[in-house]
Amino acid sequence: MTIRNKAFGIFDSGVGGLTVVRAFHDLLPKESITYLGDTARVPYGNKSKETVIRFSREISQFLISKGVKAIVVACNTASAHALSSLKQELSIPVFGVIEPGVQAALTATRQGRIGIIGTTGTINSAAYQKALLTARPDLHLVAEATPLLVPLIEEDWLEQPATHLILEEYLKPFRDADVDTLVLACTHYPLLKPLLSRLLGPEVTLVDSAEACARYVQKSLVGDDWFSTGEFEASNRIYLTDQPTHFTAMAERFLKREMDSVEVVQVGSL
Amino acid sequence: MTIRNKAFGIFDSGVGGLTVVRAFHDLLPKESITYLGDTARVPYGNKSKETVIRFSREISQFLISKGVKAIVVACNTASAHALSSLKQELSIPVFGVIEPGVQAALTATRQGRIGIIGTTGTINSAAYQKALLTARPDLHLVAEATPLLVPLIEEDWLEQPATHLILEEYLKPFRDADVDTLVLACTHYPLLKPLLSRLLGPEVTLVDSAEACARYVQKSLVGDDWFSTGEFEASNRIYLTDQPTHFTAMAERFLKREMDSVEVVQVGSL
Repeated sequence: MTIRNKAFGIFDSGVGGLTVVRAFHDLLPKESITYLGDTARVPYGNKSKETVIRFSREISQFLISKGVKAIVVACNTASAHALSSLKQELSIPVFGVIEPGVQAALTATRQGRIGIIGTTGTINSAAYQKALLTARPDLHLVAEATPLLVPLIEEDWLEQPATHLILEEYLKPFRDADVDTLVLACTHYPLLKPLLSRLLGPEVTLVDSAEACARYVQKSLVGDDWFSTGEFEASNRIYLTDQPTHFTAMAERFLKREMDSVEVVQVGSL
Repeated sequence: MTIRNKAFGIFDSGVGGLTVVRAFHDLLPKESITYLGDTARVPYGNKSKETVIRFSREISQFLISKGVKAIVVACNTASAHALSSLKQELSIPVFGVIEPGVQAALTATRQGRIGIIGTTGTINSAAYQKALLTARPDLHLVAEATPLLVPLIEEDWLEQPATHLILEEYLKPFRDADVDTLVLACTHYPLLKPLLSRLLGPEVTLVDSAEACARYVQKSLVGDDWFSTGEFEASNRIYLTDQPTHFTAMAERFLKREMDSVEVVQVGSL
């Protein structure tokens, strides 16, 4: 098979990266996807840089063994900690979710007032803040960890009163700072976009890092040689390192479509 | 060193088991503790039985290599999945948190109406439900997974309005069933006891599985040969498999005392 008809390899610590898979389905429907969710070691958000690099290397080797043409690190924590190592070490293109989110935020902002929400690990890594300030040192940035959102989303509490209360609490600093753009720096957060849009109103542009990532990959891989000819049916292969309870139901909410079969595999020395 | 002056080995997937360490400090202050928190692989609640058994075996071997006299599985998920394997395989006494919680609930209930809250993994394993019904088939049981509580506790949102709302939602089936006893089947939950007591009132007895566990170990190891002579100062050694952000601050809330030094180690093949 020519390179262009091979699959994109996409990985995340768990289910969140499936929003990136969905964005690929929407934008590049002819592309095959090979996804790995490291559900045996999820979450990465509170793990050390060294540990996250080790996990990301092991997963990349697994995806390469499955013949992918490029790798997308669909996890903000792994993008923050491991992307530069992977880019150096691997011979195929590697993309993360941070640079795409940063580019989309720079395009979206009107007043240069940008907010960022993510896991504690992502926010503390300051990866978004540093990349934004490198591009535009005059930006006014507000970055806040919002660690309760992932569990709320995984429970499907997308519209509950408690979710409203928690979001209102989390959004205070962004309202106070009058941001015009809010970066959802976690691949789980696109599921909260409807509620976030209502709470923040049309003056605040939401940057969805999953969507931004698919667009970025499309623009970066110049020429047709990288993209499927469409002569084979696009396939979706989903691998997990452990079979969590209720995974299929949750995954279908993230993918917004029915799940193909899932295979549990051991990756690295686990 | 004679066996009796060796440490108790206590482990959990993360920080939660420190409530069991605290219960040991309160009840058996002369005892040394060697604790391992598997922070590189936390949480266990949504992982498969096979994976949890493998992790528990690796940790037990690590604790035995540190010379502990007995092992306490201070994690409900690991107790549900791995306790019987560990008891068969290890030559030192092994205790879990489930049987102690079950015994305490049987003693506490007046009307035989018992509620159980825990992670999805613990509730779905039905370990508490089966053990309670084996002891007293006439019990009326209500068991509900309450997966948002661990993240709220780890964020120290113990009294926030959102926490009230979430607990009110979670407590409905227990109020409806008029339980007289509620088993906190997760080692994180003792931190929510003040709020739970206020919400449920004095008619509902809360069974704290951490406290129950320390009492159970004290009663089960018959005779003085198992307990420290007190001639050496009790030590606390805390090992983690990864150093999470803000671990010390969080751990001190669980332990209700200052932390001793923490060492990061690799356990098993990770």
